[in-house]
Formats: sequence, structure tokens, C-alpha cells
Amino acid sequence: MPASTSAVTDPADPDALPGQRVRLGVDRPMRLDSGLELGPFTVAFQTYGTLNEDRSNAVLICHALTGDHYVLDRHPVTGKPGWWEMLVGPGRPVDTDRYFVICSNVIGGCMGTTGPKETDPATGAPYGLSFPVITIADMVRAQKLLVDHLGIEQLFCVIGGSMGGMQVLQWAVSYPESVFCAVPIAAAARHSAQNIAFHEVGRQAIMADPDWCGGAYLLEGKRPHRGLAVARMAAHVTYLSEAALHRKFGRNLQDRAALSYGFDADFQVESYLRHQGISFVERFDANSYLYITRAMDYFDLAADHGGSLPDAFRHAGKATPVRFCLVSFSSDWLFPTAESRAIVHALNAVAANVSFVEVATDKGHDAFLLDEPEFHQVIRGFLEGCAEHRGLTARRRAPAA
Amino acid sequence: MPASTSAVTDPADPDALPGQRVRLGVDRPMRLDSGLELGPFTVAFQTYGTLNEDRSNAVLICHALTGDHYVLDRHPVTGKPGWWEMLVGPGRPVDTDRYFVICSNVIGGCMGTTGPKETDPATGAPYGLSFPVITIADMVRAQKLLVDHLGIEQLFCVIGGSMGGMQVLQWAVSYPESVFCAVPIAAAARHSAQNIAFHEVGRQAIMADPDWCGGAYLLEGKRPHRGLAVARMAAHVTYLSEAALHRKFGRNLQDRAALSYGFDADFQVESYLRHQGISFVERFDANSYLYITRAMDYFDLAADHGGSLPDAFRHAGKATPVRFCLVSFSSDWLFPTAESRAIVHALNAVAANVSFVEVATDKGHDAFLLDEPEFHQVIRGFLEGCAEHRGLTARRRAPAA
Repeated sequence: MPASTSAVTDPADPDALPGQRVRLGVDRPMRLDSGLELGPFTVAFQTYGTLNEDRSNAVLICHALTGDHYVLDRHPVTGKPGWWEMLVGPGRPVDTDRYFVICSNVIGGCMGTTGPKETDPATGAPYGLSFPVITIADMVRAQKLLVDHLGIEQLFCVIGGSMGGMQVLQWAVSYPESVFCAVPIAAAARHSAQNIAFHEVGRQAIMADPDWCGGAYLLEGKRPHRGLAVARMAAHVTYLSEAALHRKFGRNLQDRAALSYGFDADFQVESYLRHQGISFVERFDANSYLYITRAMDYFDLAADHGGSLPDAFRHAGKATPVRFCLVSFSSDWLFPTAESRAIVHALNAVAANVSFVEVATDKGHDAFLLDEPEFHQVIRGFLEGCAEHRGLTARRRAPAA
Repeated sequence: MPASTSAVTDPADPDALPGQRVRLGVDRPMRLDSGLELGPFTVAFQTYGTLNEDRSNAVLICHALTGDHYVLDRHPVTGKPGWWEMLVGPGRPVDTDRYFVICSNVIGGCMGTTGPKETDPATGAPYGLSFPVITIADMVRAQKLLVDHLGIEQLFCVIGGSMGGMQVLQWAVSYPESVFCAVPIAAAARHSAQNIAFHEVGRQAIMADPDWCGGAYLLEGKRPHRGLAVARMAAHVTYLSEAALHRKFGRNLQDRAALSYGFDADFQVESYLRHQGISFVERFDANSYLYITRAMDYFDLAADHGGSLPDAFRHAGKATPVRFCLVSFSSDWLFPTAESRAIVHALNAVAANVSFVEVATDKGHDAFLLDEPEFHQVIRGFLEGCAEHRGLTARRRAPAA
């Protein structure tokens, strides 16, 4: 009766994954917020389009909690289309005919970048819980090393949704001189108590699975698939809106004409959730889930600046004016519009260059991954305006659709 | 690191629990919505106050998902005060000096009424998953047998919050002639897709626990404490509002001055949630949790009346006019005001006697259990008005506070 996970494969072998890779922190390990050091470490990434001569057309995409760097490519484990191919590509709002697009798997992740499932060179065994706890700022530090490695002094744009939006904000705060424009989508300047609570439920579900083995499941030849599936199911409900769930599923029954009076998935929404749980464990590592949710919970931009969010943005707003475009979605209750508004207020308080759009949609937090025409128009328009300012000439082969 | 459950006791032995008990369905088993029959079965209940001579002052309280019949008594397992002692008692809005208050543990429950942890007389072993799946209407059928047994022809009032409110609505639909007034609080006429989804997460957490043993954990001498604790944590987040969580906990750290960069409960909200999970398994049976959440998911008053909610209420509204008072809470996102409003519209469509109050509060769904003065005033006023209509004389020893 529980979601069957017996047929599930393990998360991908990093050595067999497509894409580019670079060793960073080789000469000098990277100093983390925790005070620990990491290095050398691997960053797995993909690029799309061509870097122009003056290296001014690079767009860094930051992925969300369970995302990765396969923005446009068919996913090597699931075979599904790239997670942002509706927004990114030739002639798309993030136009790969015009921009050089970079996306890297975050540190702590499980798709090729160094994380808890990789081998600790000091012991020859998987890191597991000996991997250092990382933060959003640490993820961004690793991205900065990658961008330096690629010889790019200033990114034209940093863009991302959800945890990706947190990274965008961190870029603007940590490296304002390296960002021409920034697009944080469905994000927040600090993780709320409710969001920490939902993450904690997921972590407890994983750690309650005996196959988690105190984090050492790889050494034991096990995988906490059941706990990770429950964590994913709990999270997935929060990514949708009540209206979207009602529209998609309502109280419709799954492959039956009447209630079963049992504990099978009677309702379509149950069947959908079970599928979300089962398919997730094919592609994700349980310890990575612990580390990345922790990084999001720790995120609090103001806390690092005496509790003042405007102070956090002071450099981004004044010394080197990053151009901001914030986007929120009206039915997103995980990162509600109020969170974006608080960021806009802080940016206004330091006279930053900021525009803000709340997109009306019933699709909830997940809207940033979906076909949402108004959202896509906003991104296209903002980037075109900024590209003109930056002196980027269009390289499009055909007019925009 | 997972919530430790080693010191946890088993849910109470029903034979040792205080309170009253009655065997029902003895002459004739009770026919369930599933088509199966249950009987004889035990109903555990408590009464408070005195039944008047013409048996017209009985108030039936219907408890919520994880509630029980210990409305005013110190809980026999947790030692905590009765769950509704703020609303019920001498001089309280549900005044036990004036009314004869009854509350019974629902069938499928685990505090003395027959449920999956009780012994199946046919096998001599605990029911486990061989217990029939029950519905809200089945719970109400058992309550009706209890009320008949007590010699009460018409209840003065049926009142309850959340799942208790579902039972109140079911009473008004199934037995309108037996209800003088009805108070469904923070309820809905059908369980939403989002709520089914959250329940399914909880069920999957329980069923993912190897100690659940396919439902036969009692036979195996085990208890799925970890899965049940995760289910409780997930549910508990939905009982509060984001504002209440922010006010109570914010991003405050638990017993420490700085982030630990680990997976202990850094934040107070994490520590609070873990405590909710651990303490819940002391008093609740995992299979009961499966059965009762299922009953809520199946609840859909209109579905039993050709999809028309007004039709469901036609008898309650017209032939024998039940007086309704609906209450919702502005920050309740689990059973939002829109759900109560839909019920009010249906009652209005059949010219029923209905009043409705949305109480402004930031306490979320849990507000019906908390000190919420406006809510308590509404209940007091409505009951006093109905008592006058019903010809109930006040028996209060002192004027109301």
C-alpha cells in the first residue's frame, strides 16, 4: 500500500552524466559560511549560445531546490525535457541566439557537482553527513569561481526562481559589480517560519527512514527511498495552489467509478502525489535534499547586515546600480507576493533601479516553471531593455514570436 | 537526529480509560456506507451537566481528527486539560450549568470506541486493516444510536470544529428532526483536493514506516511511531497560519546564539514541530489516523444528493427548520471562509435559518481550540438565543462573566 519503490534506480552516477565539469578551489579551498573549507571540488554545468567578444552577454541561471543544470537538455535520468525550456532557448525570452547562458548544479547537489554523495578525497568514502553544511552564499561563491574560470568579469544577467531567486539576490549583494541586471522570481529575502516548518517535515521523513542509516546509506548499500518520497510529496503540495489542485483534480476518482472504501489511491490527486514521490527518488539524493533545504532555511539576507535589508542592498543599489526585476505569482503561498514586495521596499529605500510585477495566475509557486505568457513577456521585455542599455546587439535569426 | 521516539508509551489501554461506555448495535449491527456491517461495538463517551426533565437541553459535541471525548477532563494519557475547556463548562458559552453535554469518541477512533486497534470478536485479534473503512455519516450513525440509547429524541444543539463540523453538517442532513440548532465551525461540505493531498502525505508517511507492518503492527508487537510523528508534523503545519508561526517563532533560534551548521533543531519552529510529532504518538493509534483521515477525504455532502448541496439541506432547511450558526476564521487556510460561505449559500437557497460569522484572527485553523473571545461570544449569544426559543430556563448559579 505504501508507494512502491522497489523498481527505482539510484540517482545518476556522476561520471556518466553529460555536460561540462570543472575542478575549482584547487589552489586554495573555498571558505564556507560555516568556517569550514571545501576544495578542490567539482562543478557540473551546461552552457548554451555563444559568449560574445567582449564577454558581456552571459546569463547565469540559478536552479531551485530539486533542479539542476539541464535547463534545455533532455534530463539524463528521467528523459524529460529541460526544466526551463519554455523560457530559455533560441528566440525565447532568455534568447540563446543573443545570450550566452550558463547554469551549474549547486554545491551540495547530486547531479555532478560536489555534494554529500560524492567521494571525500580525505577518506575515500562518500561524504554523507561529513559534508559541510552549506548556505546560499556558499552556492553563489562556487558560481563566482566558475564565472571567473570562464573569464567573465560581469554577468549580463543572473536569473532564477525560488531557491534560484535567493541566489540571484545573494549575487546582487555579494558581487554587485559582477551583475548588470538581476531577476529574482518567486523568491524571498529570508525563509519564513512556515517554510522552515515544511522543510523540517521533509527532513524528518527522510531521517525517519531506517534505510537512511544515519546518513551513511551509501556505505550500507541502501537508499531511504520511502522517506525521500514522503518528503517530496509533502513539498509538492506546497508548490501548487488550492485552486490549481481543484482545477486539475478536484475530487475526481482515479480509474474507478466509485469509492473503494480502502487505502488505495481513490482520488486522482492521491495517485498524482504518489507518482511525484516515486519518480523523484530516481533522480535525487536524500542527503542532498537535507543539505539544500537547510541552505534555504538558513537564508536571511538582512541578518548578515545587522538585520537591515536595505543595508544588504546598499552596494547593489548605489555604488554599482544593478537593475532588478522582481516577479511574484498571485497564488504562490510558499513565496507570496508580500515577500517580493518587502524586497522591493528595501531596494527602493536605497534608491535602487527596480521594477516589480505580480503575475496573476492560479498555478501557485510552480508557475515559474510553467507556460505563463505574462511572466514570459515580462522577462523578455526586461532583458531586451537591459540588453539595449548594455549595448548587446540582437543576434536573432528570426524575429521574436 | 530523527525525532527520538524510544521513550514513547503505547496509546492507552481502552479498558483502563476513565469515562462511560456503551455497547451498541447489539440486536442489529450498524449498516455502514461501505455496505459492510459493524456490531456489536463499543462507544466511549463523557457527559457533563444534567439532562433536564423533558430531555431538551442536550448538546452533542463532535470532536476533530485527533480529538476525543475528554472535553473537560484532564486527558488520561497526556495529563493535559480537556481540549475544549475554554468553550465548555460552568458559566462558559456551552454552559454545563444549563446544558447536558455529551461527547463520544468516533468509531474508528482509539480512545475506547471500537476502531482498528480493538479486538475483532470474529478473530480474537486486533482489527488492523480488516476494520471496515468508515465515513463521517457512519460516525454520526453511531452517535445517533448513542443519543437514542440516552433517551434523547431531539438534541438541543450539535456543535463541533473541523471534522467535528463535518459531523454537525451530517447530523443536520441525516437527522434534521433530531437537531434544534447546529454549529459547524471551521468546516466544509466536502474535503478539498489540497486537504486530501495533505492527508495522503500523512498516510504515506505512516505506511512507509517498516514498523507499520502492513497495518498489523499490534500483532507484531511494534508501533510505527516515526511515520505517525511525521504525519502529525505535516498536518500540524496546516493547522496554523503563516502569521501565527511568524509571531510565535519567526526565525528565532532554539537554545543557541548562532546557527549550528548541522541538522539539529536550530530554529524554535523545528523544535516545536518535533515535539508535536513525538507527543502525538503517545496518545494516538496509527491505523486510526489512516481511517479517520480517510473518512474526512470521503466527505462530500452534495455527492450524496445528486451533486446539489442545497438539495442535501432541503429537509434541514424546510420541513424541520434546524437553526444554523456557521463560524470560520479569517486566517484558516485549511478550511477557509470560502468553504463556510458555500454552505451558507446552499442553506440560503433552501430558505434555511442560518447565521454566519467570520472571526478575524491570525491563529489559523487551530483557532477553534484556542482562546478567541469573539468566537466564544458568538457561540454564547447564538446558544442563548436558541435556548430562549427552545424554552430552556437558565440554571446558572451566577451571572455570566
